[in-house]
Amino acid sequence: MSARIATEPLTVQAFAPFGDVLEAAGDPDKIINQGHCGRYHDRARLDFADGRAGISIFKAAPRALPYRLDLMERHPQGSQAFVPMSMTEWLVIVAADAGGKPAAPRAFIAAAGQGINLLRSTWHGVLTPLHAPGLFAVIDRIGAGANLEEYPLDQPVLIERGD
Amino acid sequence: MSARIATEPLTVQAFAPFGDVLEAAGDPDKIINQGHCGRYHDRARLDFADGRAGISIFKAAPRALPYRLDLMERHPQGSQAFVPMSMTEWLVIVAADAGGKPAAPRAFIAAAGQGINLLRSTWHGVLTPLHAPGLFAVIDRIGAGANLEEYPLDQPVLIERGD
Repeated sequence: MSARIATEPLTVQAFAPFGDVLEAAGDPDKIINQGHCGRYHDRARLDFADGRAGISIFKAAPRALPYRLDLMERHPQGSQAFVPMSMTEWLVIVAADAGGKPAAPRAFIAAAGQGINLLRSTWHGVLTPLHAPGLFAVIDRIGAGANLEEYPLDQPVLIERGD
Repeated sequence: MSARIATEPLTVQAFAPFGDVLEAAGDPDKIINQGHCGRYHDRARLDFADGRAGISIFKAAPRALPYRLDLMERHPQGSQAFVPMSMTEWLVIVAADAGGKPAAPRAFIAAAGQGINLLRSTWHGVLTPLHAPGLFAVIDRIGAGANLEEYPLDQPVLIERGD
């Protein structure tokens, strides 16, 4: 029988060890455009080894909960940010590192309007929207050389919706 | 009486002199995640002088058409990308440069799912969503020194919905 974990709400505090939450929460850092726009300034810890930032668009098939996690991956050469282009919740799966392989995973439900930036080398699941269109802007490292490490789980983990 | 212009649809070709269209159109450059995700790779011509890329979140008040344009601006030190976080159309206003001031503006309706990246020093209007929540991820230059040039128009331009 596979292990089971429950999703948690995505909060800045809970997600801090893994990365940044990109959202318009609280007061903006600056009001611009004659009062019409709030700027939440420089919210992602971008970090690229021997490469540069680029913007790509991902279009991913929606998944459903419960979700069977059998693979995790990480990018040793750079941070990776995901910005949802629709106001729908989506699933974020991450894990701490335990001597070169993922520790027990944690699963977060990102609310509508929440993006994330994964710190460099953070173990994570593949992109898992929960609703169509599954469209995301991804800000990650553009550069030569390998930047993907995959780890098939010894035992799959079933991710169920928590509170 | 003010000048009037009509909006155009946002297309890669029409927008090329001003920047990049960020969208999942046509075939992806790469299929990833065991066939579940298409990657449209490195679609923005990011260009930052003496600074670095950063991700900020903008929350802007929705505007309506016809829209009265009375100010344009540009950022001489870097490109600026806008990724809408909702599947709603929005208004993009740009102009070529004519000896240090904006030439006649052009207005584009970005469809749901379309973001843009403005080339460095491109004249543009302020962020003008047409619907709530007016939430955008902005990838632009983080760095010291002035990076904003504003140009109040001698005569306002009324932007009306075109075909």
